[in-house]
Amino acid sequence: MGLIVQKFGGTSVRDAERIFNVARIVTETYDAGNDVVVVVSAQGDTTDDLIEKAAEINSNPSKREMDVLLSTGEQISISLLAMAIEKLGYPVVSLTGRQAGFLTQTNYGNARIKKIDTHRLHRELDKHRIVVVAGFQGLNRFDDITTLGRGGSDTSAVALAAVLHADLCQIYTDVDGVYTADPRIVKNAKKLDEISFDEMLELASLGAQVLHNRSVEMAKKYGVKMEVVSSLERKPGTKVKEAVKVEKLLVRGVAKDDDVARIAVVGLPDDPGVAFKVFTLMAKKKINVDIILQSIGRHNTKDISFTVPAGQLDLAKEALEENLEELGADHIDAAGSFSKVSIVGAGMQSNPGVAAKMFEALYEANVNIHMISTSEIKISVLIDRADSNKALNAVHDAFEF
Amino acid sequence: MGLIVQKFGGTSVRDAERIFNVARIVTETYDAGNDVVVVVSAQGDTTDDLIEKAAEINSNPSKREMDVLLSTGEQISISLLAMAIEKLGYPVVSLTGRQAGFLTQTNYGNARIKKIDTHRLHRELDKHRIVVVAGFQGLNRFDDITTLGRGGSDTSAVALAAVLHADLCQIYTDVDGVYTADPRIVKNAKKLDEISFDEMLELASLGAQVLHNRSVEMAKKYGVKMEVVSSLERKPGTKVKEAVKVEKLLVRGVAKDDDVARIAVVGLPDDPGVAFKVFTLMAKKKINVDIILQSIGRHNTKDISFTVPAGQLDLAKEALEENLEELGADHIDAAGSFSKVSIVGAGMQSNPGVAAKMFEALYEANVNIHMISTSEIKISVLIDRADSNKALNAVHDAFEF
Repeated sequence: MGLIVQKFGGTSVRDAERIFNVARIVTETYDAGNDVVVVVSAQGDTTDDLIEKAAEINSNPSKREMDVLLSTGEQISISLLAMAIEKLGYPVVSLTGRQAGFLTQTNYGNARIKKIDTHRLHRELDKHRIVVVAGFQGLNRFDDITTLGRGGSDTSAVALAAVLHADLCQIYTDVDGVYTADPRIVKNAKKLDEISFDEMLELASLGAQVLHNRSVEMAKKYGVKMEVVSSLERKPGTKVKEAVKVEKLLVRGVAKDDDVARIAVVGLPDDPGVAFKVFTLMAKKKINVDIILQSIGRHNTKDISFTVPAGQLDLAKEALEENLEELGADHIDAAGSFSKVSIVGAGMQSNPGVAAKMFEALYEANVNIHMISTSEIKISVLIDRADSNKALNAVHDAFEF
Repeated sequence: MGLIVQKFGGTSVRDAERIFNVARIVTETYDAGNDVVVVVSAQGDTTDDLIEKAAEINSNPSKREMDVLLSTGEQISISLLAMAIEKLGYPVVSLTGRQAGFLTQTNYGNARIKKIDTHRLHRELDKHRIVVVAGFQGLNRFDDITTLGRGGSDTSAVALAAVLHADLCQIYTDVDGVYTADPRIVKNAKKLDEISFDEMLELASLGAQVLHNRSVEMAKKYGVKMEVVSSLERKPGTKVKEAVKVEKLLVRGVAKDDDVARIAVVGLPDDPGVAFKVFTLMAKKKINVDIILQSIGRHNTKDISFTVPAGQLDLAKEALEENLEELGADHIDAAGSFSKVSIVGAGMQSNPGVAAKMFEALYEANVNIHMISTSEIKISVLIDRADSNKALNAVHDAFEF
C-alpha cells in the first residue's frame, strides 16, 4: 500500500498485445491498494519512424521542431495505454509531459527537468485514477515542448517518484534485473537482488545498458528506491538503493566496453603543463577521454597515452597532429580495436587483494593488459578487443557471485 | 500586403514532396510582403491509422483519450511543414492548438471554439515568423486536449482569420475552386470567381463538399473573406464573401445529394398536432429530416412524407411503426434510392421564372419529380437516384453559367 511509479519502455508497449500486458501489470498494482503513476515511452520504432520522416524533409531541422515532432510518440503511447486500462474497467487518465507539470530548461533535444508542478497529478490521484504520463518530455519557459534526451523516460519516472515521494520507482525492461555480467556473454552471470546507486552508476557508465546514468544519479540525489524488473516475467527484479546490506560479495559485477581506441602522444618534453595542453585540445573537440597513462620516455621526454571512444579516434588524432609542433611532441600513435573490462563493487575499497585477483585471472587466460585505471569501487583494464569475451568470463569466474 | 491565413488539408501534406509544395506556396506569400499564418491538418491517412490503432485496443475508448491520440496527427504535420520552411531558409515556428491559444468547450471529439488567446500568435508575427498552426485542436478549461470534429481545420483557419483580422483566409484543396456543378458529372460545369456566404452554405449542405458549413457560417458571422484555391495549380480560386457583385447569373450552382431516402406516414387523422408528434419522434432518434410534404389523403385523413439520409431510413421506419397506433396512422411507406437535385443562387429571389425553368428542363429530360422544396435562394427536387446524373446535367444546361 503506497504510491508506486512504473516506467515502461518502447518495446513494452510496441503493439496492442504488449500494451495489454502493461495494463495488467498496472491494474494488478492498483488492485493491491497502491496509487499508481505510469510513465511510458514511444512505441517500438515510432521514434525512429518520426526521425526518418524529418530526415526526408530536412537533414538539419531545428531542435525545437524535432521536439514538437518526437513528443507525439509518447503522446500516442499514453492514450493507447489509457484506452487499454479503460477496457479492463479501471479509472485512468493520460497526461502529456506538460499536463503532468514537467518544466524544463530551455534547451531543446536534451533539456533538464527544472521542476514538476504536481497540482494536476495530485488532483487525478485524489480521484483514485491511474495516471499515465508521457515520459521524455516537458515544457520550457517559452511554453514550448522540449524533450529530455537519451534515457529521458527513466529520468521522468525517477523525477516523478521524487516529487511525489513514491515508495518505489519500478523500471520495467526486457531483462529481469541487473546481472553480475552480460548474460549473453558470461553464462554463469547471476542476477543481483540489490545494488547500490554508486555501483549501478559505475556499471551503467561501463556499458551495462540497463539504466541510464541520469536517472540513477537523480534517484541517488533524492533517495528514490528503484527496481529494475521484467515486463514479461512476474518475478522480483533488482533493487537499486542507497544502503545495500553487507554481503560476502566484494565485486558486484563485471562489465565491458568494446568501443575503445587508444592514442599515444610520444616524445613530449618533460615540462609542466604539457598534459594540460593535450587535454585542452581534446576538450575543445568535445572528445571524451577515459583512461589516462603517463610514462617516462627516452632522452628526458615523456609519453601520454589515453583512451577515447572508437568513433572519435580520427578526430582526436587529427587535432593532435595539427598541433604536434606546438606540443613539442615527436609523433602520434593511434590504434582502435580495444576493449575495457571492469569490475565494480563497493566492497573492494577495503580489500587490496581484489585487483591482484583480477590480474591473475587475466594472466591465466593469457590476456595482455595495456592500461589500468582504478577508482574506489572500480578497476578497469584495457585489453585487445579480440580478447574481450574471454577476459570477461575469466574475470567473472575468478570472483564468487 | 497584409495578413493571410492559409489552410492545407491532409492530402496537401501527405508526403515530403507535397509538404515542400505547401512550403513554396507559403513562402511565396511571405515574399510578397504578407504576414502568413498556416493551418494544417494531419497527413493523408494518419488520422485513419491512429483510429485503427485505438480500435485494436478498445472498440469504445473515451473521447478524451481519442482526442489525446488524434491531436498528434496535426502536431506531426506542423513540425514537418516547419522543417520544410526552415529548409527553404525562412523564419518559422510551429504551434499546437494550445500554443496558438485555442480555447474550446469541454466536450471531447466535437468541441466548439470559445476563444482564441492571440498573445503568442502576435509575438511570433511581430518577429516576422511564418506561423504554422495545428488545425482541428484546442484546449478546454480542464487543461485537456480537445478536437473540433469534422471540418475542424477549416474552422480553425477561419477562426484565426477572424481574431487576427486577416485580409484573407485561403482554403487550399484538391480542387481549384467552387463549380456551378460537380465537374466529374457535369462536363460544362464552370468555376465561379466568387460566391456569397449564403450560397456557399446552401451548396455545402447540398453535398458540394468543398467547404464545411461550420467554417462558412463562422466566416459569414465574422465577415472573413475566404478563397477556395488549388494547392496544385497556381491560379485564382473562388472567393467566398458577403457581398457578391451583381451578375447576370440567376443561379450560382447546381448540386445533388445521392444519399436520400423517403418515408411516408399514410392515413393520419386530419387533426392538429399530428405533424408535431411525427417529427418529435424523429428528433428523439436524432434523425435528420430534410424535405417535408403534407398532402390530403382519402376519408378525412392526411399523409406526411419526408426525406431522411439513406442510412437512417430503418431507424426512422422502426420508430414510426412502433408508434403507429398512437399516431393513428394507417401504415408506413419507406423507400431508399432517391436523389436530391438543387439549384442555388441569390438571384432567384426576384425571378419567379427560375423554378419553372428547372422543372421544364427535368420534364424534357424525362425525369419524374417526387417532391419539391424551396427556400429564398434554393430550389430542391427529389427524384429517382437512377436519374440523378441525367437530371444534374439537364438542369445545369438549362441555366447560363
